[in-house]
Order: sequence, then C-alpha cells, then structure tokens
Amino acid sequence: MVTAKKFILKKKFSGAASPSNVEIVEEELPPIKDGEFLTEAVYISVDPYQRAYNQEVGQVMAGIQVAKIIESKLESYPVGKYVVTHFGWRTHTISEGLTAPWGIVLDFGNLPLSLALGVLGMTGNTAYFGLMEICKPQKGETVVVSGAGGAVGSHVGQIAKIIGCKVIGILGDDEKGKYITEELGFDHYINYKKANIKEELTTYAPDGIDCYFDNVGGDISATVISLMNKFGRISVCGSISSYTLDTYDMLKFTPIAAIFIGNELRMEGFMVTRWFDRWNEGIEQNLKWVKEGKLKYRETITEGFENTIQAFMDMYEGKNTGKAIVKI
Amino acid sequence: MVTAKKFILKKKFSGAASPSNVEIVEEELPPIKDGEFLTEAVYISVDPYQRAYNQEVGQVMAGIQVAKIIESKLESYPVGKYVVTHFGWRTHTISEGLTAPWGIVLDFGNLPLSLALGVLGMTGNTAYFGLMEICKPQKGETVVVSGAGGAVGSHVGQIAKIIGCKVIGILGDDEKGKYITEELGFDHYINYKKANIKEELTTYAPDGIDCYFDNVGGDISATVISLMNKFGRISVCGSISSYTLDTYDMLKFTPIAAIFIGNELRMEGFMVTRWFDRWNEGIEQNLKWVKEGKLKYRETITEGFENTIQAFMDMYEGKNTGKAIVKI
Repeated sequence: MVTAKKFILKKKFSGAASPSNVEIVEEELPPIKDGEFLTEAVYISVDPYQRAYNQEVGQVMAGIQVAKIIESKLESYPVGKYVVTHFGWRTHTISEGLTAPWGIVLDFGNLPLSLALGVLGMTGNTAYFGLMEICKPQKGETVVVSGAGGAVGSHVGQIAKIIGCKVIGILGDDEKGKYITEELGFDHYINYKKANIKEELTTYAPDGIDCYFDNVGGDISATVISLMNKFGRISVCGSISSYTLDTYDMLKFTPIAAIFIGNELRMEGFMVTRWFDRWNEGIEQNLKWVKEGKLKYRETITEGFENTIQAFMDMYEGKNTGKAIVKI
Repeated sequence: MVTAKKFILKKKFSGAASPSNVEIVEEELPPIKDGEFLTEAVYISVDPYQRAYNQEVGQVMAGIQVAKIIESKLESYPVGKYVVTHFGWRTHTISEGLTAPWGIVLDFGNLPLSLALGVLGMTGNTAYFGLMEICKPQKGETVVVSGAGGAVGSHVGQIAKIIGCKVIGILGDDEKGKYITEELGFDHYINYKKANIKEELTTYAPDGIDCYFDNVGGDISATVISLMNKFGRISVCGSISSYTLDTYDMLKFTPIAAIFIGNELRMEGFMVTRWFDRWNEGIEQNLKWVKEGKLKYRETITEGFENTIQAFMDMYEGKNTGKAIVKI
C-alpha cells in the first residue's frame, strides 16, 4: 500500500496566493491492476498558468511532473523509466497509460531530466511555437519580450537572437537584466520598476517594434503596443499582471484603436496545447540548440514536496531565474 | 478662373466635433496645364475615420469624393467622365492623374454614382475584405457586428448571411435594429443603449460567438470578446468609441487575458488600403450581390457642400442609416 500526498485547492485564489489557499492531503492508493503503473514524482513544475486554471475547491492543483515508474503491469511503461505528464501537485500516481504528447521522457543524453519540465518541455515549446508560429520574427526585426527573466521569456529572446533579431527584454530586476543581456545575448533590458518604459523602448528600438511576445499584459503591454510598426505581431502567452485580479469577469478592452487599426497589428492568444501534434519537433529543436550552446537555461529548484506552494508564491514574486521546479 | 471652396481644419478635434473645428476657405485655382484635368465634386463621403486622420490645422479635411471632370488636358481623363478619389472636402480640384485604386468610376449600369462612395467603394470593400480576409467566417458560425446600423456594419452582416452564418448586430437605435433584421436579414439586433448586452448575446448566441467585426471598441467589444469561442476571430475595423477621446496617447490595454489566451483568440486591426491591389475584386463581388438583390443599402444624403460638417456630426450621433454622403 502506497500513501500519496497531494495539494488540493482549499480556498480559491484571490489576490496574492498564500499557503492557506491549499492543503496537503494524504491518499491511500490501491494495489495496481493489470494495465496500470505506479509512479513517484521526481520533479514538479510550478508555472503561472496553474493559478489561471482556477480549479474547484477540493481538486488537486494542476501541474506537470517528471515521475519515475516504480511498479508496472503495463508493458510499454516499464519500471525504472521516467514519464512527463500532468499528474498535478502529488507524490504518487496510478495511471493506465498516457496520451501524446505525454509519455516516456525523450533521451536527453547527459542533460538532467528536470529539463523535461523546462527548456525541453512545455516551457520550451511555449517559447518555440508561440514565437515562431504567431510572431514569425524575421532577421533584422526588433522583438520585445515581457517577463523576460522568466523561463519562457528568456527562452523566447534567445530564439529571436538565433534568428538574427534585435531583442529587448522587459523585467523587474537588474540582476536578471544583466543575466539576460550579458549571458543570454539580449541586446537590452528594461527594468519596468525603475524605467520610463516608453522612453527606453524609443531609445533602444528607434525603428519601432515588429514583434511582441507578451507574458504580462496590462499597462506594460499597452506601452509596447503603442510603439509597434506596421503589421506588427503580438503573441499573447500570458498575463501575469491579471492572474491576481479578484475576478475573471473583470474583462475590459479599452481602446488601443489608433495604433491597432492604423498599423494593422495582429494579436493572438495561444495555448501551447494547440501544437500537441508537433510536440517533439519543438523539443528536438530546443535540444539541438542546447547541445550547440546557443540556448542557455537556468533552473530555480526548491527541495521538498511540502514547499511546492512556497515555490509557486516565490515565482509570482519573481524570485526565480529561469524555470521554477520543485524536487521531491 | 475657378474658385474652389474647401473645408480646412481650424482647431483640432477634442470631444464632440463642432462647426468651430473647421472653416470654409476659398481658393482661386490656376488654369490647368498640359497633363492636368479639373474636377467638380458631385458627392463627398463622410466617414468616422476622417476624424482619426487627425490632420494638422490648416489642412483640407480628408475624404473621398465622386467628381465630374469638367476640363481636361489629359487624354485618359476626358471631360464628362467621373472619378472617385481622395480629394477631401473641397468643391473643385486640379489633378495630374490618379493612382490605383483611384480613377474613373466603374460602370455600375443603372445604379447611382454615389454608390462609388458606399456599397461599391471604400465602404463596401472595407466590409468585404475586412470580414472575408480577417474573420474568415464559415457557414453555420455566429458572427457579431458592432456599429451594425452603419454603412460598413450593415454590409458586413449581409455578407455573413450570404455565407450562411447566424448574424447579430449591435447598435443604438431600435428603428435601425428593425431595419437590419426585417429588411437586411440579420437574425437579431441588440440596442446597446437599452439592453444588457451580455445577457442578450448569451440568449441569441447560445453556442458562443465565432467572429466579431468591430466598429466601436470600448466596453461593447470587451463584452463581445468575453463570449467568444475557441479560435474566435476579431476584425478591428474601427473604434468610434475612442475617436472622440481627447488624446491618442491615452492608449491602454487592460487584461482580457483569461478568455483571449484560453480561447486562443486572434484580433487584427486593418486598413482597407491593404487590399488596394485587389480593389476591383471587392467592388465587382459587391456589385454582383447588389444586382442579385442579396445586398441592400441605404444612403443618407445631405444636400449642399456647406453642410458637410453637419453631415459629419450627424453621422457621429448615429443619425444616418447606411452610407452618409453629401451631395454638392
């Protein structure tokens, strides 16, 4: 008999997340049956979107994990292999098999398995497909990325550099700003907590902005969009500035008309699930860039299942650099 | 010697337009030279966008007109023919020839020439290309049109009906609402001045909204967008609710993130100038539909050049039904 621990939502999020929103509950798992396998979580991913899922009270918190198969009565999932899938914030899980793109972790060579949650997983594919398929950046264009210190943003900027764009990252921390410019090759960073974003963008992007990869929404995005060139493309990946709003009914679309119509901008929201059928294309491209040294990453690893909520809160406060992961 | 009259911008628009924003000035035109022709305005178009041009004080108000060639030293522009082009709000103009898509008015058969400013001109092409190329509506989908009583909106809804969509028009006048439903074939109308837009949209579009053709922006658009289906398309044609804002720097992009990202919506602003190279394709398609009786139109014609500013103000107050035109 195995006892699983799991985080369930105790109280819906309102304002900043706190430990009181969740509760750790124990669950006795039954013996596995034919056609099932049992896993033990190794790494759990904490991501901004997990809050936006807005699950019901009593449900397990959503999230992807890398888990080791520790018992199996399903041939295609042998003991000792690792899977990557959306088991949520829980230690042990029984499964009847996974549906693509989820399944056995690809062979990363010498690289750590945790990358299946980051640069070589959903995060990496969010950056790859969201930039390439929606912004479609061209060599010589200017690309702005908000949330540039995060896992997705720092990845997006590096791809844009590989393509040959000028890249400006917006974030809220000078140390991270130095990291993305000095180590990742971004051309400039803007600290939105200190700078006049409009002035700095005008200085750094004198020819205007062609692509905007948006992780934050709100006023920062309004400013970026106001400086975009004819036929500019906006890929709306996230809106961390709105996830902490009390209500999702607070939708409001105030005019950005003069520029949006006049410059014929195109803005598209996306969920990376759209590219599930091309999943390994993204992972293999990112893996190639990592091995070539063109794509760098960082991970902020928190130890201990019980600290998952703390890791989640820290991420919302921007304490992580690169992918935020909990090691079980 | 011909004396032209022209409206020049005297004071930049701020709040509602008024006669004090413009001034009629007379201009003595020189004799035409070889390679030139002289026209006399027959119809001048008043459109919401003319305010958004935000021209400099002293410049002629922007606008398209149908004009008769009354004198010519340019073979391809013979006396007696009519041209359609952006001469602005003025009675007489000397030209050295026009650049496509502007030029001699196409042959409309028995239909009036004024249609070159409406259903068979820029207005009609705005509706045709803006709907077909950006919303790409499919048979059986639900299409919402704001500003549905206007020239573009009433045209858009009729095309969507020809395609086989359910069409809901939003406007601010019950009489126009009856016109678009009873005469033009819209399935429903919503009077935004009286109705709870969200409730009525939910009632009329129980399967959600697939396409939104936006002429107004602001809160109405926020509500429509909040009810859109997965992979919904938004064609942003105009934003009449924002043209009267005092400043175009008042750009703001507040979060519509939950729905925009979650449902992977695509929103694109456009200027019909994008399709200048396909101009006659739109006019010929609209002409075909008009002749077949599938596409109806109305015109609100104001008499007298001096009344152009009044016609413009009336249009902003929604007093026109269909295309607003001044007959000189």
